Amino acid sequence: MNEARFAKTPQPPYWAVIFTNQRSTADTGYADMAARMVELAAQQPGFLGAESTRDADGVGITVSYWESEQAIADWKANAEHQIAQRMGRAEWYAGFEVRVARVERAYSMRRSEA
Amino acid sequence: MNEARFAKTPQPPYWAVIFTNQRSTADTGYADMAARMVELAAQQPGFLGAESTRDADGVGITVSYWESEQAIADWKANAEHQIAQRMGRAEWYAGFEVRVARVERAYSMRRSEA
Repeated sequence: MNEARFAKTPQPPYWAVIFTNQRSTADTGYADMAARMVELAAQQPGFLGAESTRDADGVGITVSYWESEQAIADWKANAEHQIAQRMGRAEWYAGFEVRVARVERAYSMRRSEA
Repeated sequence: MNEARFAKTPQPPYWAVIFTNQRSTADTGYADMAARMVELAAQQPGFLGAESTRDADGVGITVSYWESEQAIADWKANAEHQIAQRMGRAEWYAGFEVRVARVERAYSMRRSEA
């Protein structure tokens, strides 16, 4: 178990941005920008954490968690993030879905032996 | 672009179950049960679709979409799904987080050349 792969979120309610995406074949600058966005999001007011995974077909899901809708709007408007968003649309993603949701309930499980 | 990897959801509001999980090393029966659960969920009233991906470290995120909280409750209570849930806790998952959220806004992008 790598606990770092799970976001340590508080009791609901809070907000989630579900970003389901298919990578394009364009790789230039992607890894650096992705790492930079993780770093930048973590400094953003109201950021609670994120969970992310991608399979061998390039299909990824990243869910980021936020204290409020305003925190999400502020992150979307961040200048460096806006450049990344433009590059994402122009280069790095073949397609994506973004869904903004209010988390109402949550529960978890950990097994000790795994 | 494989459109089948994206759920064709209606205009919000609707509901999402975000299931972030770490697989254990126990594989017995997992693939069959996972396929069966996809089949069974699709027959469930109020099911809108699902998106799912897993990386080489066994970290997976599945987001299923539902018309209502009641539809989610009914799916959780489904007899065959309950067996799968017990097996998941006992065998297949080292840990997971489940978050139930109400989707308030959504937008998407597709590029033609990819």
